[in-house]
Amino acid sequence: MTTTTALQATTAGAPFEVAEIPLRELRDDDVLIDIKFAGICHSDIHQVREEWGKAIFPMTPGHEIAGVVSAVGAGVTKHKVGDRVGVGCMVDSCGECEFCKDGQEQFCLKGAVMTYNGRGYDGEATRGGYAQQVPVSERFVCSIPEGVGLDEAAPLLCAGITTWSPLKRWGVGPGSKVAVVGLGGLGHMGVKFAVALGADVTVLSRSDAKAGDSKALGAKAHVATADPAALKSLRGTFDVILNTVSADVDVNRYVSALKPLGVFVNVGMPPSPWALRPSSVVGGSRVVAGSNIGGIPETQEMLEFCAANGIGASIETISAAEVDGAYERVVAGDVRYRFVIDTATLSKPI
Amino acid sequence: MTTTTALQATTAGAPFEVAEIPLRELRDDDVLIDIKFAGICHSDIHQVREEWGKAIFPMTPGHEIAGVVSAVGAGVTKHKVGDRVGVGCMVDSCGECEFCKDGQEQFCLKGAVMTYNGRGYDGEATRGGYAQQVPVSERFVCSIPEGVGLDEAAPLLCAGITTWSPLKRWGVGPGSKVAVVGLGGLGHMGVKFAVALGADVTVLSRSDAKAGDSKALGAKAHVATADPAALKSLRGTFDVILNTVSADVDVNRYVSALKPLGVFVNVGMPPSPWALRPSSVVGGSRVVAGSNIGGIPETQEMLEFCAANGIGASIETISAAEVDGAYERVVAGDVRYRFVIDTATLSKPI
Repeated sequence: MTTTTALQATTAGAPFEVAEIPLRELRDDDVLIDIKFAGICHSDIHQVREEWGKAIFPMTPGHEIAGVVSAVGAGVTKHKVGDRVGVGCMVDSCGECEFCKDGQEQFCLKGAVMTYNGRGYDGEATRGGYAQQVPVSERFVCSIPEGVGLDEAAPLLCAGITTWSPLKRWGVGPGSKVAVVGLGGLGHMGVKFAVALGADVTVLSRSDAKAGDSKALGAKAHVATADPAALKSLRGTFDVILNTVSADVDVNRYVSALKPLGVFVNVGMPPSPWALRPSSVVGGSRVVAGSNIGGIPETQEMLEFCAANGIGASIETISAAEVDGAYERVVAGDVRYRFVIDTATLSKPI
Repeated sequence: MTTTTALQATTAGAPFEVAEIPLRELRDDDVLIDIKFAGICHSDIHQVREEWGKAIFPMTPGHEIAGVVSAVGAGVTKHKVGDRVGVGCMVDSCGECEFCKDGQEQFCLKGAVMTYNGRGYDGEATRGGYAQQVPVSERFVCSIPEGVGLDEAAPLLCAGITTWSPLKRWGVGPGSKVAVVGLGGLGHMGVKFAVALGADVTVLSRSDAKAGDSKALGAKAHVATADPAALKSLRGTFDVILNTVSADVDVNRYVSALKPLGVFVNVGMPPSPWALRPSSVVGGSRVVAGSNIGGIPETQEMLEFCAANGIGASIETISAAEVDGAYERVVAGDVRYRFVIDTATLSKPI
């Protein structure tokens, strides 16, 4: 059996170790990717610590994958050896249901196969991008256009599409008034996209600590929400508020900052239910929505937009040995704005 | 000063009495309407009983008005004497803000003037449709097409537009899977519209008592929600759920009955906040929305649709003397599906 070198955790919360992990035989529709960079998503930490329900160990996380094609199965037509490619949160879906046919594979009625900590339709556990190679069905492999570095491209495959999809669904464009709540891995991408789409962007952050970054990213304003009066003064201001934080908030305060017909869309996952007053949404025909990554065609569209607009994630590149420490910094909110693992630093185990 | 004969309540919850109420001098842009029918909306009851905050007395309710033009101001171009016309919840707005210009006068930034229990921009209290005449700015007077009776048209001006607007905003059309929660004044219109738009409609009602009516209105299914298992079996079924009831419900159960990308839209106003779990909307990119009546162009569009599709409200016509009793029946849910007052029965006070 072929193997590749990877980071893996053998039990919930264990430190990562370098290991040789199995690679499946290349299927007809498979693309074998030599991974160059893998982003660290906060959801990696939740899963490797088994904070989101029962997990599959040993686990190799990573669903922000950028690399180069090194082999292709007999039936592959979409990619060829040498292509710059990326893989996000999904590696398979039924391909036949209404959502798959509509390019919304994340809603596949059979259940999309997650890139790691999932099981393929063959029952085998999936392994992610903290590794040197991964085989993925060509349907779930996107092209990374020239002009976007593979390192800054990796986080686009999750943080990018997760913020791009709701901004597009809810019609953000020239003149839109947009607020992005939280300036982290997701939030900084939300700001970059909304600005490039022509919106007038405000960052809503707990404090003023990142006010300089907000401006540097193109936001017109940065408002510290720790003072309730600040949000109150924004009543009726925004067409779209993109909430990227997973902390509990008074949702009604944010909904009040929407114009009539405005949309408060969540990509974070706060632990407690929101106490949403019906009057908050009924009076102004307002909307509270959620958003979950995006489909493959939309991911490709986002990557093309990034190339055309000079957008990549703002990253801090680390070695494989630094991942455990990086996790602590992600939990502490101490990263601007995404850690990316250089997989060339994975040494063979002793 | 000119007057007209009307029902009025002099204090919160007092029985109605017949009275002569003042009519303003006809303004240049005013249409004087000889009211033929006025619908009874549940919100009339809330306001006349002062259940929605401080109200203005004496009060003549009524914002579902159908009649015939009997005079026009010097500058009126949209209507002429003899025209069949209707007036809904609004009688004025600034006409200049982004929402007024967009035909969404209900969101006027200056504040739209409500048809009754409101104050015009001149400070005068407004009086509604439980009367024989009312002067209204032509901008807020819709044409009632031939083919829709004035009696069955009256409730279209509130119950009709309130359900039409969200169905259109959320893309209901041929093949949509739609649920309507509650089969009352609003709900029965929601079913008629969704069916006529080509949707596959399910009524979600507390019990099976109205199952026959659901079918008669064109719904494919009627599900009694008192049994929690019934709703559970509908998981992932609907593109749009239109909630017309104002009772407290577990919103997550309804959101679970949506397909991915589906919309739970509320026109009712439950008293307590919803405990909405973020995961309910994030996972499937679902939506919880509110909707508040609709603009004047959309109201006219709805009336044309009614004429083209043979739609009117299902009504029970009553005399002015029966209004107090009708209120009790509305509160008890004992009307199929809207009371309409024949204003010819208003006698002069002794």
